[in-house]
Amino acid sequence: MEEIEEKIEKIEKLIEEKNINELKQLLNNLNSVDISAILEELDKEKSLITFRILSKENAGEVFSYLSPEIQEKVIENLTDTEIKNVINELYMDDKVDLLEEMPSNVVKRILRNVKREDREIINELLNYPEDSAGSIMTTEFVDLSEDMTVEEALKEIRKTGLDKETIYYCYILTWQRTLVGIISLKKLVISEKTTKLKELMETNVIKVNTLEDKEDVAKMLSKYNFLAIPVVDKDEKLVGIVTVDDAIDVIQDEATEDVEKMAAIAPSEDGYFSTGVFKHSRNRIVWLLILMLSSTITGGIIAKYENAFMAIPLLVSFIPMIMDTGGNCGAQSSTLIIRGLATDEIEVKDILKVIWKEIRVALVVGGVLGILISIFVMAVYKNIALAITLGLTLLFTVMLSKFIGATLPLIAKKIKLDPALMASPLITTIVDTCSVLIYFTVATSIML
Amino acid sequence: MEEIEEKIEKIEKLIEEKNINELKQLLNNLNSVDISAILEELDKEKSLITFRILSKENAGEVFSYLSPEIQEKVIENLTDTEIKNVINELYMDDKVDLLEEMPSNVVKRILRNVKREDREIINELLNYPEDSAGSIMTTEFVDLSEDMTVEEALKEIRKTGLDKETIYYCYILTWQRTLVGIISLKKLVISEKTTKLKELMETNVIKVNTLEDKEDVAKMLSKYNFLAIPVVDKDEKLVGIVTVDDAIDVIQDEATEDVEKMAAIAPSEDGYFSTGVFKHSRNRIVWLLILMLSSTITGGIIAKYENAFMAIPLLVSFIPMIMDTGGNCGAQSSTLIIRGLATDEIEVKDILKVIWKEIRVALVVGGVLGILISIFVMAVYKNIALAITLGLTLLFTVMLSKFIGATLPLIAKKIKLDPALMASPLITTIVDTCSVLIYFTVATSIML
Repeated sequence: MEEIEEKIEKIEKLIEEKNINELKQLLNNLNSVDISAILEELDKEKSLITFRILSKENAGEVFSYLSPEIQEKVIENLTDTEIKNVINELYMDDKVDLLEEMPSNVVKRILRNVKREDREIINELLNYPEDSAGSIMTTEFVDLSEDMTVEEALKEIRKTGLDKETIYYCYILTWQRTLVGIISLKKLVISEKTTKLKELMETNVIKVNTLEDKEDVAKMLSKYNFLAIPVVDKDEKLVGIVTVDDAIDVIQDEATEDVEKMAAIAPSEDGYFSTGVFKHSRNRIVWLLILMLSSTITGGIIAKYENAFMAIPLLVSFIPMIMDTGGNCGAQSSTLIIRGLATDEIEVKDILKVIWKEIRVALVVGGVLGILISIFVMAVYKNIALAITLGLTLLFTVMLSKFIGATLPLIAKKIKLDPALMASPLITTIVDTCSVLIYFTVATSIML
Repeated sequence: MEEIEEKIEKIEKLIEEKNINELKQLLNNLNSVDISAILEELDKEKSLITFRILSKENAGEVFSYLSPEIQEKVIENLTDTEIKNVINELYMDDKVDLLEEMPSNVVKRILRNVKREDREIINELLNYPEDSAGSIMTTEFVDLSEDMTVEEALKEIRKTGLDKETIYYCYILTWQRTLVGIISLKKLVISEKTTKLKELMETNVIKVNTLEDKEDVAKMLSKYNFLAIPVVDKDEKLVGIVTVDDAIDVIQDEATEDVEKMAAIAPSEDGYFSTGVFKHSRNRIVWLLILMLSSTITGGIIAKYENAFMAIPLLVSFIPMIMDTGGNCGAQSSTLIIRGLATDEIEVKDILKVIWKEIRVALVVGGVLGILISIFVMAVYKNIALAITLGLTLLFTVMLSKFIGATLPLIAKKIKLDPALMASPLITTIVDTCSVLIYFTVATSIML
């Protein structure tokens, strides 16, 4: 990142010196991703000057990596011809992403400058549901026919390949555009020139439907180590492909979304800094409110045992320890299960295996913690009744919280709720109520 | 997954009927990833029979997708010749992974059957630090020289490409094996046959060092949308490449590790089910113990205010609500910051921007929650002093917990600790102490 900052200074200096030649050369030696990162940091005027200097092909690629805010600023300041050049360099999935992010006046300007034949495809792509394979696929793939020889196929790729998002997997279609086979460029390059594709192609095609959840599509790409996966419509016609770089983005976004849900935050598509204070507040307040009201139940239980803690005030000071340990134990179990479900390592049908494992872990953990706290209390307070109370409470609390933490995410999944909602905050609140109840029940029966 | 279960039944039936021909045909139509998933589910005998039926090339690929437990069982039951065939089909990174997972007697048997020239490379690869680029790279890449023409390059790829992990990026080396350029197979296929690579190759090569953290390598592959990234040693000599499929695995593993740390679990490389009860217990108990002992501090503070809650017992029943809300607010902030740091969206230098944002969010959230709880308490208890106490306590608690939750992960990163450790459990414990202190300070000054 330091390097980028150096480059920014250099570019700023070159612009001030109007040294366009050297600026061009510097940009030529940079990767498009880095150029877009630099444009994000430059002031508006300088970033436009820099963008205009880029070559036509480069401009499209750099543009596709910019944030929506900067993309909007760039478009507002380009002429219609310039817009046409940039937009028509973009792959179809990037065009669609752009249109989804821009305000309506900018969308109109973009659509006016898109090629007529692309406009129809864009409209179709915009119509796929938000999280579907269709919404992230691109339409620039290589299609071949099974009667071609390797040589003919390579000739076709040479002719059309430049504009394809990937040429490393080629798709073999019938004249009705039904997908019948796949061949990798590796196989094409290595094979005899006169062999027909029919004899070389992989016919056991792993594909997804346009409506498939994009998270499942990303997982499939990762599971099979594919560079792209074909997307077919309900008539088995090939309509697009999802490439591995988009799959990685989906995997990252889903992990972020899960982590946010697990911390009782309504997940948001936008970044931390680009989300406003009120949106941040709204995303967080709903769950806080639900959890706050739920924890008054725990308060109600405590209030019922007023006699107990008025007789033995010391009982009150162990409430945080019991609540925290229960909450943490529950959070550990629920986190492991939620993550296991997300990575497909754990399935709903494993529920008994999970419970059996968690109960044994809870016995070990609860046993050790219970014994340690008893020793601690004996050493500090020399009160055997209190020591036994706390030891037993911890054992029961740990067992119950691990059981709740492990089962709730699985139940959520079973009834088609998002398991990530059953994470730390909700589990903590439920476990709190139970642990306080256990605590005072044990305490009153042993100590009073 | 249902499909897989159907296939398993079919395979079991075919083996029992000794119908090897049909079994072969069925396996031919399956992807290696699916075959390995099937082998995991079959009983030992049937899974060995099935494995032996696979073609030589297929056997290597299927083997590389098996879990270490099954890999061990397979090797134990193969002859030396069979082992040789399987192992020598594996890519170098998979060979190294295998050796790292197997017990020493199996390692010896494998090494005995590895080609002599590979043994040296394997030993070098095994010596790289655990989380480094060197430990996950493979050595099967295409190297070309800059004086070759496109035609010569394609001929070379045709000759050696079959055994390379990827041929889609080719690396251009000097005779001393220094990396000077990269060319994609796309560019080779599309370009004129007589052009020299020198004129076509990308010389602004983005590469990593063997000792680079594998997480950073994975992030770079994702950032630049690469299919592979070259790994060079300290003399700038190309020693390997990291491919995108391995990068995805790293990204997934790191996300799991972060989530586990954020739930106060010592992260483990093994899966949920393959980790034993005692290892699970050990992974969880250390943090539980630390947090349990810390929360006795909160208990100590409560004990100090015995007079206050003996005078107004109702105060005790709001302790859970205050603690939970504080903990949840802190967890929300710390989670957003930890995830932002993990995805490079937030950097340590943004600390003031983060604090400014969190303070404003805290004012909104704390204000709303404070007002709501005051109304609730007035409605239920008709006690204006208690209503004001709780309202103010919540406002202060939310502000403090969001401040602590946002700053601790950034400080951890600054002093080179893992920010993920500053997640919910630790924040909750710290915030508990503060919030109880705020609560009783406000309560005693308003209500007593």
